[in-house]
Amino acid sequence: MKKVVVIGGGTGTFVVLSGLKKYPLDLSAVVSMADSGGSNKIIRDEFGLLPPSDVRQCLVALADDTYVAQKTLRQLFMYRFAKGVGTKGHTFGNLFLAALSDITGNQVEAIKQAGKILHIKGRVVPVSLTKTNLVAKYNNDMVVKGEHEIDEPDFDGRLHIKKLSLSPRAAIYADAERVIKNANLIVLGPGDLYTSVLANMVVSGVPEALRNTKAQLVYIVNLVTKKGQTYGFGAKDHVFEIEKYIGRKLDFVIFNNGKFPPSIVRKYQKENEHPVVDNLEANGRKVVKTDLLAREEVKKVSGDVLKRSLIRHDPKKLAKVLVKLLKVSS
Amino acid sequence: MKKVVVIGGGTGTFVVLSGLKKYPLDLSAVVSMADSGGSNKIIRDEFGLLPPSDVRQCLVALADDTYVAQKTLRQLFMYRFAKGVGTKGHTFGNLFLAALSDITGNQVEAIKQAGKILHIKGRVVPVSLTKTNLVAKYNNDMVVKGEHEIDEPDFDGRLHIKKLSLSPRAAIYADAERVIKNANLIVLGPGDLYTSVLANMVVSGVPEALRNTKAQLVYIVNLVTKKGQTYGFGAKDHVFEIEKYIGRKLDFVIFNNGKFPPSIVRKYQKENEHPVVDNLEANGRKVVKTDLLAREEVKKVSGDVLKRSLIRHDPKKLAKVLVKLLKVSS
Repeated sequence: MKKVVVIGGGTGTFVVLSGLKKYPLDLSAVVSMADSGGSNKIIRDEFGLLPPSDVRQCLVALADDTYVAQKTLRQLFMYRFAKGVGTKGHTFGNLFLAALSDITGNQVEAIKQAGKILHIKGRVVPVSLTKTNLVAKYNNDMVVKGEHEIDEPDFDGRLHIKKLSLSPRAAIYADAERVIKNANLIVLGPGDLYTSVLANMVVSGVPEALRNTKAQLVYIVNLVTKKGQTYGFGAKDHVFEIEKYIGRKLDFVIFNNGKFPPSIVRKYQKENEHPVVDNLEANGRKVVKTDLLAREEVKKVSGDVLKRSLIRHDPKKLAKVLVKLLKVSS
Repeated sequence: MKKVVVIGGGTGTFVVLSGLKKYPLDLSAVVSMADSGGSNKIIRDEFGLLPPSDVRQCLVALADDTYVAQKTLRQLFMYRFAKGVGTKGHTFGNLFLAALSDITGNQVEAIKQAGKILHIKGRVVPVSLTKTNLVAKYNNDMVVKGEHEIDEPDFDGRLHIKKLSLSPRAAIYADAERVIKNANLIVLGPGDLYTSVLANMVVSGVPEALRNTKAQLVYIVNLVTKKGQTYGFGAKDHVFEIEKYIGRKLDFVIFNNGKFPPSIVRKYQKENEHPVVDNLEANGRKVVKTDLLAREEVKKVSGDVLKRSLIRHDPKKLAKVLVKLLKVSS
């Protein structure tokens, strides 16, 4: 079975995993561990654990949904408490992982056990076990610490990040290194360029692992720019930024050329965000351009799996393209 | 398959169900819904739900423990948070049921879904869906409201309860009525006489259902007396009290005649509690006397399933006796 590793953490990774799990592949999700918002902050501060939200979303993406019981467990994992003085705002899946970490004695074992309970296809691997925070230095030399603070900027969203790092420094987790090494295909993105994708690349050992693997390296370009991270970025800028952090060229770049519904474009424009323009230069990279849009506008759901984007990649269309790259027949 | 209904709620019911689930029986647990302590109080007050602890314990008792994933889920269900400002003291299983009640839209459906997730053998049925509280009137005319307040008395533990009732009055839940009606054998106890066993009998419709069923009615006498409830009670007093509330004679009474370890007797004595003495008079009832003691002293475990008793019935020994009554071969 071909080994596919998806590196990321947010909604984009959720979509890629949801699509790929229908194929006979050996799937691993390598997940950013620098989340710092809401329920994660509580789990970090009060439980002394690593932030679980990205892990939780990947577990849900890979969960078996053919049985009623697992379907319900998936829903529970995404559920956010609306009641209870002590529980309001908590994500049930995060509490699930926190309780399980206490029972099993460590968080990695808890992630494995949760995977068994949800009957996941594949595995979810933290990119690092170091408790750390993202630090962004912007082109005006402002420094912002914390994934959540970078992700939801209360400053000029047209600023660009000059340098992303982790404080304290974090080292790659051995299992993450191993799956990257043994992969046939590694998928980066889509997802917030700095807070989801590059959040993994600033872990020491990850760029090295990505340079040393024989796997083909694919990047799926985001559909829209994001304020505070990629204001005004075209596809090329995304690609260059990733290659800068990992120190090697990408093998494949996947770009959506499907047309956005004008109503959605207008909604994004109000936020100073725009569909990513195609200014790609192949320059040795293989570029795949095709319609990858999900047909329907994303609806808000309980839980935060799809918390922000109005439009997203279609899991099936994405998976089809990726599997073609692997020359695996479905 | 023979239909067995176990009525109760606390540790005793847990033990009976744990033993019986190994046999090919159609099992139902009819569960008291008047719990008011700790996590239950929060779930009642802040979520507006019925107290889930007794349901949770029965779900755990009936859960499949042959698969690793279900074993872990069982542990989770019993887990009590030791960390987290908002979660400390909460029982995970109660939060599980609360979240599921919100997702499914009602608590009965949540109990059913949780049963599926835990792969339980049989079903767990709330005795009533009315939000209510136990009220005890003692022989000195003192009135105490609330299961928790009655269960852990801060008054003279030698007092006896003259009258147990519910405020507001609560009506039997249709499913509970149905399983009682269709049962072949109904098991009451062991368990705290007023707060676990009779807590079910004061629900209107329950005594009537127990009088009208063709099922054989078995009572398993407690091992020790309990302060504030059964101070100085012999086996006969337990039996008479139950018969008084249901308005019919029991068919079988099961009594342990195994010898208590002296060290345990001494521990109970310090609390003014004693092994229940055998002053039974058959008087038409079939009395089974045999060694039913679990060999080992009960250890404290995380969660509150076995929160208080130092010694308990052995699930296997109890189940063997009950199954013999049913003439079911194992």
